[in-house]
Amino acid sequence: MSAPIAHGGGITAAAAVFGGRPEEWLDLSTGINPCPVALPEIPARAWHRLPDRHLVDEARCAARDYYGCGEILPLPVPGTQSVIQLLPRLVARSRGVAVTDNRIAVVSPTYGEYARAFAAAGFAVDAVGDIAAIGAEHRLAVVVNPNNPDGRAWPAEVLIALHDRVKSQNGLLVVDEAFGDADPALSLAASAGELSNLVIFRSFGKFFGLAGLRLGFAIARGDILERFEEWLGPWSVSGPALSLADSLLRQDVSAIRRRINERSAGLHSVLTGAGLRIAGGTALFTLVADEKAGDIYTHLCRHHILVRKFDYAPDWLRFGLTPDPAADRRLDEALQRF
Amino acid sequence: MSAPIAHGGGITAAAAVFGGRPEEWLDLSTGINPCPVALPEIPARAWHRLPDRHLVDEARCAARDYYGCGEILPLPVPGTQSVIQLLPRLVARSRGVAVTDNRIAVVSPTYGEYARAFAAAGFAVDAVGDIAAIGAEHRLAVVVNPNNPDGRAWPAEVLIALHDRVKSQNGLLVVDEAFGDADPALSLAASAGELSNLVIFRSFGKFFGLAGLRLGFAIARGDILERFEEWLGPWSVSGPALSLADSLLRQDVSAIRRRINERSAGLHSVLTGAGLRIAGGTALFTLVADEKAGDIYTHLCRHHILVRKFDYAPDWLRFGLTPDPAADRRLDEALQRF
Repeated sequence: MSAPIAHGGGITAAAAVFGGRPEEWLDLSTGINPCPVALPEIPARAWHRLPDRHLVDEARCAARDYYGCGEILPLPVPGTQSVIQLLPRLVARSRGVAVTDNRIAVVSPTYGEYARAFAAAGFAVDAVGDIAAIGAEHRLAVVVNPNNPDGRAWPAEVLIALHDRVKSQNGLLVVDEAFGDADPALSLAASAGELSNLVIFRSFGKFFGLAGLRLGFAIARGDILERFEEWLGPWSVSGPALSLADSLLRQDVSAIRRRINERSAGLHSVLTGAGLRIAGGTALFTLVADEKAGDIYTHLCRHHILVRKFDYAPDWLRFGLTPDPAADRRLDEALQRF
Repeated sequence: MSAPIAHGGGITAAAAVFGGRPEEWLDLSTGINPCPVALPEIPARAWHRLPDRHLVDEARCAARDYYGCGEILPLPVPGTQSVIQLLPRLVARSRGVAVTDNRIAVVSPTYGEYARAFAAAGFAVDAVGDIAAIGAEHRLAVVVNPNNPDGRAWPAEVLIALHDRVKSQNGLLVVDEAFGDADPALSLAASAGELSNLVIFRSFGKFFGLAGLRLGFAIARGDILERFEEWLGPWSVSGPALSLADSLLRQDVSAIRRRINERSAGLHSVLTGAGLRIAGGTALFTLVADEKAGDIYTHLCRHHILVRKFDYAPDWLRFGLTPDPAADRRLDEALQRF
């Protein structure tokens, strides 16, 4: 059993060490939109009844139109995590080969749960530095696009070429577009219908600011989604989550995108104003590289501001978006005192 | 891959065949309390943030006190279904034996997803008629107590003796108490701390009338819960579900229990008044045995009332609770016209 990974969202633990009431902390440790949309009304039956086929189908149609994946109806899943856990099973079943043929590649550094899930299932995980290092020996390859935490992005046509190469070697390509909503041009969703060895994961909660919902979508050709559906079992996604997806994915999201971009600009301004070097990022977080990253992390904790640090890259800090200009000023003042 | 099981809650499909708007149907096809409690307020952070350790811990403490399981903190899971899917893995890992040693027993007939999950994982499933037929050849045994759909119930001391026998044969006993809230005396929860080879599943949504939430709890000694937690991965349960569990499990539930018992008495009165024979049931549903069950099912569909029929027992119909006396009268009138 591999050790759990430290994720964002650990305000309670941080407050236990550095003091302060958790609700008074400024949580910049996640990549979640801190300006959530107003919650649409949730019909009573979504709470009280088992999620009906009709509710699921409505959410799938809304997701298809939002992601622009043509004839594919995205499969709602209770968070991307739930399908990451199923990937080893998908590989094991899809080729029926010996357990010695068990190498997979993860373009790294990236979100840690892919390597963890495959290692726990007995796979050998190669953390490769770029997509060029994905080889014929890899039964599956994972690319997070844009990547977390460094924000590297691969254009759609580059990943389509990668898919074709992986497919010619009987492999499977997983593209995690968890941070893809702010830049839809990067998405492979529109091509998914033609790419038989591709699985795309989308996150609902990050962009809409509803991470507590536990909702994501998987986009792939039918047989792969049928297997995920079978393995997740009936009613894997809650009624309120399906109802909110149905409402929010049909809305005009340009105001959400604009707000995120405003917040991102505010964060950049504070970070560069404090003399920090921006090493990458997406619209929902910014990566800073600094040799004093560990000290800055602790200093910010003393000001009850939590950011994300990385065991594997001690000079990196990831800053999530601040909710408003007042929070920008609070971060600015704390950084100026460092 | 085994075929999906027809479950309750298929109003949309029934309305497509028999007409009527789905919201005008009377859904008696599930075992869910049709008189849900008022929703307590859900704090904004439960929607917007990833479920924090603190929120999880609060829900676990509330569940421990409600289920009365002593020092065990029940593990919140996104519906019992999610852990049923993990049972084959638990058995495979827990003993590390050859895949030929793969027999399990399910006291049957009962909820179909146990047999389906084990069969899909390559196990041989013996549908045994009673607990006496569970043998040394079974690595795991499932008992639903009280049982769905026939309402058979085994006293706690009988199942404790069964646990000890199963344990002496190096097996694991799973007791599904999904319908146990109305009769807490049947529960093994208070003994779970002393029973090392026991796993209890509890359903949150049925009794509280919140099946759309997707929430259940697993109760077992630490190492089993740790494995479930590892396999489900982080944030498997939504923030709103954890928040509602924390609120509702701390409330006095006697009014809920009284209301369910009133509704159950109303349903019994209608069914016996129509000359139907009660073959079993729990507080949340009643099983009828009638050689014309198939015709009654279709007749009720024509009146836009959906009940549950069973492929394996064509003379059975399961009636869920009606929400109020008006619905009792509607059911009564439809049955009188048969």
